[in-house]
Amino acid sequence: MKPFDLQPLLEGNRRALAKAITLVESKLDSHREQAQDILEQVLPHSGNSIRIGITGVPGVGKSTFIEAFGLYLIGQGKRVAVLAVDPSSPLAGGSILGDKTRMEELSRREQAFIRPSPSEGALGGVAQKTRETMLLCEAAGYDVILVETVGVGQSEYQVAAMVDFFMVLMLPGGGDELQGIKKGILELADALVINKADGESENLARQSKTHYTSAMNLLRHTSFWTPRVMTCSALKSVNIDAVWGMVLDYYFRAVEEQVFAAKRSRQNLDWMRQLVQEMMLLRLTSNPRVNDMLPKLEQQVVNNETTPYAAARLIMAQL
Amino acid sequence: MKPFDLQPLLEGNRRALAKAITLVESKLDSHREQAQDILEQVLPHSGNSIRIGITGVPGVGKSTFIEAFGLYLIGQGKRVAVLAVDPSSPLAGGSILGDKTRMEELSRREQAFIRPSPSEGALGGVAQKTRETMLLCEAAGYDVILVETVGVGQSEYQVAAMVDFFMVLMLPGGGDELQGIKKGILELADALVINKADGESENLARQSKTHYTSAMNLLRHTSFWTPRVMTCSALKSVNIDAVWGMVLDYYFRAVEEQVFAAKRSRQNLDWMRQLVQEMMLLRLTSNPRVNDMLPKLEQQVVNNETTPYAAARLIMAQL
Repeated sequence: MKPFDLQPLLEGNRRALAKAITLVESKLDSHREQAQDILEQVLPHSGNSIRIGITGVPGVGKSTFIEAFGLYLIGQGKRVAVLAVDPSSPLAGGSILGDKTRMEELSRREQAFIRPSPSEGALGGVAQKTRETMLLCEAAGYDVILVETVGVGQSEYQVAAMVDFFMVLMLPGGGDELQGIKKGILELADALVINKADGESENLARQSKTHYTSAMNLLRHTSFWTPRVMTCSALKSVNIDAVWGMVLDYYFRAVEEQVFAAKRSRQNLDWMRQLVQEMMLLRLTSNPRVNDMLPKLEQQVVNNETTPYAAARLIMAQL
Repeated sequence: MKPFDLQPLLEGNRRALAKAITLVESKLDSHREQAQDILEQVLPHSGNSIRIGITGVPGVGKSTFIEAFGLYLIGQGKRVAVLAVDPSSPLAGGSILGDKTRMEELSRREQAFIRPSPSEGALGGVAQKTRETMLLCEAAGYDVILVETVGVGQSEYQVAAMVDFFMVLMLPGGGDELQGIKKGILELADALVINKADGESENLARQSKTHYTSAMNLLRHTSFWTPRVMTCSALKSVNIDAVWGMVLDYYFRAVEEQVFAAKRSRQNLDWMRQLVQEMMLLRLTSNPRVNDMLPKLEQQVVNNETTPYAAARLIMAQL
C-alpha cells in the first residue's frame, strides 16, 4: 500500500484531508490500520480548535444557522469545518445532515470544509469516526469545528461528549412543551439559542427566552458557567456575532479557570473507557455459547425463574 | 451447613426473614451461595407488592413521612417493609438510614419490617443486596416495600431502577433553587411530594406546588403518566391518604396499560446486563498486566500521545 503523505494535509489541502477521512471511515481493515497510523502522526498537530456541538429538532433552521454562523466566522478570519453525526442515516438510507446543498454559500468557500455524517460505524459507532475526523480537520488547520446532530436521539450525548461547547437551537414558542427535543438534552446544553427571532416571531422569541432562562436555571450549572439563553435570526444574520461572542466568553473563562484542557482530557479518558466496555461487550456477544444461551436466560429472568445475578454469573461462566 | 428452612419465612416469620437477609448481606462465599439458593426458591413467591422508592435531602422529613405513611398503610390492612439504600454508609461509619429509632411507632408494629442499609456491597453494590432483600420481603408477605435513599448521590438512580414508583420529597420553598437535590433526580420522579405543608408553611407549600408543577411539565412524561406534584404534612398526617391514592392510581393505570409487569421485566434485564458489565470490568481491573499499563496509558491519552481508540485496543490485547 502506498504510504499516506501527511504534508499536504498539514498544509490544509482539502483533497488530502478528504482522503484521510475516507480512510478513517473505511470498512477495510487495511484502511483502518492506515487511518490509525495517520491519526497517531497528526495527534501533535491536533487540538487547536474550538469544538462546538449544535443540535435542534428538524425545522429549527440548523442548516441556515450553520451557514450564517460559518460565514460570519470566515469573515472573522477563521477556517470552519462542519461535521455531522447522524446515527439514523444508515437506516434512513442516507444522511440528511452535512449535505452541501443545504449550505450552498458556505460550501463554496475555500475556508470551509463540510463533511456529511459517516454512513456507519463499527466500534464506537459514527461518533468514533466523527471524533477522528475532528482530529484530522484540526491538523489541517481548521479553527472552529461545528459538529451537527439531529435533536431526536442518542447522538446528542455522544456529540456533547466530544465538544467544548454544546448548544441547542430552539424555536420561538412558549408554553411548557419542549418542541419534541428529548428532555435530558437540555441538561447537556451550555446554551439555548432561539432561532427565527425575526418579524412577527420576535416578541414570542423574547417570551421564550424568559421562559427557558427560568427552566435552565432549574436544571444545573457547572462551577463556572451557567447555561445562557439567547435569541438570533440566522435568516437575517441578527445576533450571530453575539452567539460567537458567547462561545468566546466561555472559551476564555474555561481557559482561565483551567478547565478547558481538563475537560478534553476527561472526554478522552471517558471515551477510552467506553471503547473498552464496547470491545468487551463485543467479545461477549460474539461468543457462540453466550449467544446460544442468552435468549433462554433472558426469558427466565423475565418469567421470574431466575434472578438477574444468577443469570449474569451463568453468562460470565461461558467466557 | 444446616439447610435453610423456607417455610417460616413464607409464613411471614420476621426472624426467619431477618436471617435470610443476613445471608444475602454476608461476605462469606458459603453464605452467599446459600442466599442464592434461597432466592431461587422464593422467586415464585415474590413480586406481589408495590415497590415505592422515596428520596429527599436530609431535613425534608423522610423518617417522619415514612412513619406516617407506613402507619397509614397498616391501618389499610397492609404489611409494610422499609429498606434503605445508602452507599455512603460504609464511609460515614454506619448507616443513618433505616434506623429503627427514627421510626419509633412504626418499628413497634407487627405488620412492619424495617431494615437498615446494608453496610457494603460487592458486585452490584448495596443495590444488589437491597434488590434481593426486596424479594425476600415479598416472599414473606409484605404488600408494600418502601425503599428509602438519601437525596444526594448515585443511589437515587439505583433505587429508581428497582421500584415501581419513585417519589421525591421536597420542602416548601420556592425560587429557582432545588434545595440541594441533584437535578437529574427530578427526571426520575413519578411524583414530587412537598412535605411540611403545615402551619405557617402551608401557603408557601401551595406556591411551591405551582412552581414545581410547571418545572416538572418541562422535564418529561411517559406515555401514560405525567409526574404529579402534591403537598402533605407527615407531622400532622395531612394528605398522607392522598399520596397513597396517587400511588394506587398509578398502579391501576399501569396494570391497565399493561406496563406494570413490563417495567419490572425491563428492570430485571437491565440489572442483569449491568451485572455482566460489572463482572467483565472486574475481570479487566483484576488483570495484573492491565493494572501495570493503565496509569501510563491514561497519561498518554491525556498528553495526546495516543488516541482513545488505540489505547483501548492495547488494553484489550492484554485480556
